[in-house]
Amino acid sequence: MESPSEESTKLPTQQDNTQDSNSDVRNKKTKVKQVQIVCSKDRQFTVTPVADSYHDALDELPCDETTILQFENELKGQMADTSDTLTHNSITALLSSKFRDIQKRLKQYGIEAPKFRKRLVSKWESLNYDICENVLYIKNRDQYRSKIHHEFGGRGVKRWVTFGWLSKWMIMLGIGLLTALLAAAIHGIVEEVAHIKFKYLSDYFDQCAKDDCLYLPVFMWMAMNLVITCLASLLVTFLQQKAAGSGIPLIKAYLNGVKIPGLLSFKCFIAKSVGVVLSILGGLFCGKEGPMAHSGGIIAAGLGKGRIRLCKGKGISLYDGFRNDHEIRDFVAGGAAAGVSAAFGAPVGGTLFSLEEAASFWNQDLTWRVFFGAMISTFFTNFLLGAFHGHATELSSPGLVRFNVFDNDLKFDLIEIPVFVVMAVVGGVLGASFVVLNYKLTVFRQRFLRKNWLKVIEAGVVAMVSALLAFILMVSVDDCTATKPFGNNTVTARMHCKPGEHHGLSNLFLNTPEGCLKSLLHDPYESHSPASLAVFTVVLYFLSVWTYGLSVSSGVFIPSLATGAAWGRLVGMGVVDMLPGLTHLSGDFGKYALIGAASQIGGNLRTTISLTVIIVECTGDISFGLPIMIVLMISKWVGDFITTGLYDMNIEVMGIPIIPFEAPPLVDDIRASEVMTSPLIGFRPKEKVGQIIDILKTENMCGFPITEMPEDEPGRVKLKGLILREQLIVILKKKIFAPEGLQQPKNITIADFRNFYPLYLKIKDIAISEEERDYMIDLRPFYNPTPHTIEKTFSLPKVFNVFRGLGLRHLIVTDDKLTPLGMITRKDLAKFRAGTKRGLVKIEHLKIEDN
Amino acid sequence: MESPSEESTKLPTQQDNTQDSNSDVRNKKTKVKQVQIVCSKDRQFTVTPVADSYHDALDELPCDETTILQFENELKGQMADTSDTLTHNSITALLSSKFRDIQKRLKQYGIEAPKFRKRLVSKWESLNYDICENVLYIKNRDQYRSKIHHEFGGRGVKRWVTFGWLSKWMIMLGIGLLTALLAAAIHGIVEEVAHIKFKYLSDYFDQCAKDDCLYLPVFMWMAMNLVITCLASLLVTFLQQKAAGSGIPLIKAYLNGVKIPGLLSFKCFIAKSVGVVLSILGGLFCGKEGPMAHSGGIIAAGLGKGRIRLCKGKGISLYDGFRNDHEIRDFVAGGAAAGVSAAFGAPVGGTLFSLEEAASFWNQDLTWRVFFGAMISTFFTNFLLGAFHGHATELSSPGLVRFNVFDNDLKFDLIEIPVFVVMAVVGGVLGASFVVLNYKLTVFRQRFLRKNWLKVIEAGVVAMVSALLAFILMVSVDDCTATKPFGNNTVTARMHCKPGEHHGLSNLFLNTPEGCLKSLLHDPYESHSPASLAVFTVVLYFLSVWTYGLSVSSGVFIPSLATGAAWGRLVGMGVVDMLPGLTHLSGDFGKYALIGAASQIGGNLRTTISLTVIIVECTGDISFGLPIMIVLMISKWVGDFITTGLYDMNIEVMGIPIIPFEAPPLVDDIRASEVMTSPLIGFRPKEKVGQIIDILKTENMCGFPITEMPEDEPGRVKLKGLILREQLIVILKKKIFAPEGLQQPKNITIADFRNFYPLYLKIKDIAISEEERDYMIDLRPFYNPTPHTIEKTFSLPKVFNVFRGLGLRHLIVTDDKLTPLGMITRKDLAKFRAGTKRGLVKIEHLKIEDN
Repeated sequence: MESPSEESTKLPTQQDNTQDSNSDVRNKKTKVKQVQIVCSKDRQFTVTPVADSYHDALDELPCDETTILQFENELKGQMADTSDTLTHNSITALLSSKFRDIQKRLKQYGIEAPKFRKRLVSKWESLNYDICENVLYIKNRDQYRSKIHHEFGGRGVKRWVTFGWLSKWMIMLGIGLLTALLAAAIHGIVEEVAHIKFKYLSDYFDQCAKDDCLYLPVFMWMAMNLVITCLASLLVTFLQQKAAGSGIPLIKAYLNGVKIPGLLSFKCFIAKSVGVVLSILGGLFCGKEGPMAHSGGIIAAGLGKGRIRLCKGKGISLYDGFRNDHEIRDFVAGGAAAGVSAAFGAPVGGTLFSLEEAASFWNQDLTWRVFFGAMISTFFTNFLLGAFHGHATELSSPGLVRFNVFDNDLKFDLIEIPVFVVMAVVGGVLGASFVVLNYKLTVFRQRFLRKNWLKVIEAGVVAMVSALLAFILMVSVDDCTATKPFGNNTVTARMHCKPGEHHGLSNLFLNTPEGCLKSLLHDPYESHSPASLAVFTVVLYFLSVWTYGLSVSSGVFIPSLATGAAWGRLVGMGVVDMLPGLTHLSGDFGKYALIGAASQIGGNLRTTISLTVIIVECTGDISFGLPIMIVLMISKWVGDFITTGLYDMNIEVMGIPIIPFEAPPLVDDIRASEVMTSPLIGFRPKEKVGQIIDILKTENMCGFPITEMPEDEPGRVKLKGLILREQLIVILKKKIFAPEGLQQPKNITIADFRNFYPLYLKIKDIAISEEERDYMIDLRPFYNPTPHTIEKTFSLPKVFNVFRGLGLRHLIVTDDKLTPLGMITRKDLAKFRAGTKRGLVKIEHLKIEDN
Repeated sequence: MESPSEESTKLPTQQDNTQDSNSDVRNKKTKVKQVQIVCSKDRQFTVTPVADSYHDALDELPCDETTILQFENELKGQMADTSDTLTHNSITALLSSKFRDIQKRLKQYGIEAPKFRKRLVSKWESLNYDICENVLYIKNRDQYRSKIHHEFGGRGVKRWVTFGWLSKWMIMLGIGLLTALLAAAIHGIVEEVAHIKFKYLSDYFDQCAKDDCLYLPVFMWMAMNLVITCLASLLVTFLQQKAAGSGIPLIKAYLNGVKIPGLLSFKCFIAKSVGVVLSILGGLFCGKEGPMAHSGGIIAAGLGKGRIRLCKGKGISLYDGFRNDHEIRDFVAGGAAAGVSAAFGAPVGGTLFSLEEAASFWNQDLTWRVFFGAMISTFFTNFLLGAFHGHATELSSPGLVRFNVFDNDLKFDLIEIPVFVVMAVVGGVLGASFVVLNYKLTVFRQRFLRKNWLKVIEAGVVAMVSALLAFILMVSVDDCTATKPFGNNTVTARMHCKPGEHHGLSNLFLNTPEGCLKSLLHDPYESHSPASLAVFTVVLYFLSVWTYGLSVSSGVFIPSLATGAAWGRLVGMGVVDMLPGLTHLSGDFGKYALIGAASQIGGNLRTTISLTVIIVECTGDISFGLPIMIVLMISKWVGDFITTGLYDMNIEVMGIPIIPFEAPPLVDDIRASEVMTSPLIGFRPKEKVGQIIDILKTENMCGFPITEMPEDEPGRVKLKGLILREQLIVILKKKIFAPEGLQQPKNITIADFRNFYPLYLKIKDIAISEEERDYMIDLRPFYNPTPHTIEKTFSLPKVFNVFRGLGLRHLIVTDDKLTPLGMITRKDLAKFRAGTKRGLVKIEHLKIEDN
């Protein structure tokens, strides 16, 4: 969330050129720059303009018959010229025109998604899934294997493989157990402390109802909320801003393959897990389910890395075998699943949640491990919560949130389906407007609330307003009832009611958001009057819009469900009144609250099949799963017709380049050569230290091809491999270089690279003397000798398949002789985004902007 | 199932050389043959030995520095030499030694998997997922688009994209509805007719119990079974043998990407759906759930193709837009999901079932469509079954099989978990022995029951024996009871019992397998004596082993569940007797039957997370989902420790090359060049008809690279594309060739290729005159200009990722100049198989054998 705000600090100036003309200029520039540069031995660069558009080439039948002009240029003139595209001037102009645009649009609360979401931020990088099988890796592996073989024989090797396999399961067991422990701890603390808080307030209110001093407890309430919420916000704002919000959008992006620094750090864990306790105790209208998924992911990453890094360079390191993006991502998938499972008691839903984002990496063994972790977590949470309530062995509390306490099985009749469908449509529309409103608010926050202390103040204000609104509703709406609400421990307040009665809204407001949801689902018919429910719905809706996106750790699941349950309950009361013939209704009209909750969350989040399963698992009643599924599907469709889902909106606002599952339609006449980033800057297998340093400092690329020009084949540029920025920095840091002609030191192992994972140093942290600049690095033991390549004639859908299917970070585009021409990274593909706009499929071309 | 039997007819001779020495000879030959042959313009071949082993190359650092010797050879001498590897002599020798091996092993009923499963049959080909973007395709697409654009403007193109997207949803709707209709029809017919049959038999038995003529009804029973089952078997054996068995293994293989001719044909549909009705009515102990998944898949393929082909060349064709393997596979995934959902009322489980096999193709839009189809199917089945039972609007019969009629919610206590775990271990062991026994039986059948009439007779015998055994048990076991069994319509027989009583086993035997399962789950405690349950379990177990694999359409889900429920019920009765303190047990001890059922099916099938979800959805009670999941997981582990699952065993026996999700361990020092098939035979962009005919006739490859040697670059072999055997045959059939120098006819469109899909002609069906043999074909508009390639230095795990991740059929291995060296297909990868043997991971190297 904070990333765009950081970016916006850079651009106080505004320029006059309009956005359209600006983008035209930019396009032209890019077109001219589609040329290829490759390092040659004599410090010269080959520059090749890439082929013309697809259609021109097509007329001549086979695409590769286009002749390619070759000419050469001096290095520096070319470099200065090409970097022009990314100068600060053009970006500033672009962004400022962008912001003017938003300002204009903020005035018109139209449905159309503003242009702000149509850009990607260039700072986001991909994770490294492709195992770099360089010489170092192979040597290390073979040495280890032959050592084992020598000591234990062939059986030893098998045992070693089995051990590696088993240790992944053991780590998953640990993830499940720790996540469950965390979930139970958060739940226990929140429940106990919140009960004390609300009991105190309720007693105070009851006291003051007699003494006519109701303003006193409300001030007390507001003060409590202010202090606790500010603490929660301080933790997030100053410890780790990635901990803000639900965490699910970022976890989704991470599982999609985007590297998000700090997301899985120990600081983020503290900010997230302690923060969410404080947020809820602070009276914010938020849930702890999203934060649980994020916390589970962090626990998983920590266990996977076998290390806790408390502060820079200090920490405890246990083992390093899984310290690469590939393994850690698998563990994080398991951790997120365990978190969701613990929160909802939904092991299948949790597993699906993790896996449906990770299209290219679904794999049966991983699925089982994730499922195992999710089950362990569900089971252990169940046990711990049972123990907390004093009946550990009954295993009757499978998750933090459960809806399955309906008295009888929920039945439904075919004639109720139309009502459900209408509710789903309403939920879809309300959800879409939730997204639009929250988006406007996000833009406002990024524009005007960029300072950290402002963020803290806003959180405090929201918490105070929440209490104030609750109080105003409780004194102004006439809704006294003597009906005992659902739940034994529920706190109520008398307010202006007669003795023996309580205010119908008091048990909703003097409750955690989860308790409020449960009350809405299960309270008897007489507990709340229709008028108070209607007002309550409106207040809840706008409060949850305002709360989501604050700089605190807060989930949006429970608020969405509660809002939906509120208006769903209203519909249910209406149906009972209007159709008195349906006798079975009055008993379980709470199912309408459930359908409302499902509609609202479907409209807000639009998450896929996993959400369906989670809600059904939470309900605990599969026969009622069918209407829930129908409702979730319809509300998703209706919402998608209007705008994207809340999580997707978050991701779009941050400009994170998510790679969709398939290429959008109508891009199949675009070729790889048209989307690739070129010119390409590469290194020779033996390269000068100074040259590497210079390129790393001036270019922001993260992968560099290794090329050489064989002496026996003049004119040919041979692709040897690919080296990553991180690898180069580690090599430079360890000073693995020597003066020309001398043997370079070999005191580097694969473990040195793992040590720096995942927080590699920056190039500016590397100190290299002037003398060392002339030394040579032999890169041959380090580069990846088998990078993935495609020919430049590949169509964009095929490029998508390769990139997404293989989970790549860099895809080298070559000509028909395997000469590297350009590079395709995540952003080059993510900039083509498909969406629907009023039912018609559309394709957006996003801009890539610097941060 | 029938494929290995066909193959075995070819080899009546046996040779003396042992298998080991034989395989040695073969290995050596293959080593010598690792050379590369590419067509050159002057009809000469370049032959290049590929690099030495990985380790040798490694010592010299970068792998591509190995020098490559080049020399040339005459075409014919080389061809004759290379085809040697595939002569019939060596195969016959191999196979006969293989069969001797089995014969030896049949005598020792050990646990170890026999060698018979360690081979792949070469006839299995991959599906074509990679869209061939040849010139014809692009022209067709662009013409259509510009036509739309011309008529409707830019909005028209969007509308067209939206329409294409929508039509997939509409087809999925149709798949859901038709599958539900089929499910309801099968269910209705089976229930009604079976009730009439059993009622008649029961009355006959009751009559004869008085008249002491019990031998008469049993003969009548056996005669009925014999006739109906023989009909069922005739249908399958003579109409379409692919319809035998449950169909799930073949659907799994298809979804994995294996082309299985006839699997999705209309004949197969008839044999499968009518066949399963007859099998169940014929008294075979089998279920209709697997066949439902298969039938759903066939319905989906039919709707997707937009055509029903009643007999060769005749049929109704509606549209052809989706006639390619890529789209049809997606529909089949939806159809299989719809089938499973209709059978179990498990939309989520059905969706997972389809998707978990299809690792490389998981995709959110597809997931939603599959889920939609599954939901429609569940919903409509529910409605139809409700209408069948006279209460359509209540929607209370979501699937054909449901366990959710337990009186009260199933509760469980922590202290019951150990019992469940022990049951899971027992289920795993019983399941593994089920697989081993059934495997032995399969091998026996393939050896001695190869004639079609023998297959029919065997099915009849099993049906008769089923009736006879039931009768023997009912007269010999003393189990009279007066307790009314579960279910209003249940048929019982008095046999030797007192008037007013009935035999405890009669309502199990005089019932469909599904009814039997329901009785075992829900019958009151007193309904069956422990002794009769014990005998019943043993009989059921061996009967189901014998039944599965007969040449009839029959599922193994229900028999597995019923067997498990039988012994689970026995355990439950024991627990109730031994722990009288647990009062809540006696009411719902049926949960032990449920756990037993889950254990047994987990042990038998070992299917993954989808099975878990299906069982939980069937139970309808999520709070009891946790113990079910634990049990399924443990029984899978125990079973896997001993042998593979039943479906995997089927696939292994058929030699189908399934590509696993990941490369097996310890193969990462193997390089692409070591597994590729070479020499490679290619064509020039303009090729002689006679040359193409000759190659197609002598080689059994399905994809051929197109190469040319540019005149300006002497010595270079340039890869231009890839053409498929099917494409060549269509081109030859349509006579798209001309004498050299003349323009070749252009009267061929993309629709001509779709017309032949999926049953392409064979090369022997193409008539070409001697004169035409000298004509030239210009292949440039037809070949795929962007085939996927990898460099020869790629390690095997990376090759796996590429192949599986992209769903390829052909992967061309090249050198560092993109010169094609060899080809990797499905079998080259599937031959490396990972397994566990007594807990240790092992790698098997399968042999590829001709059929």
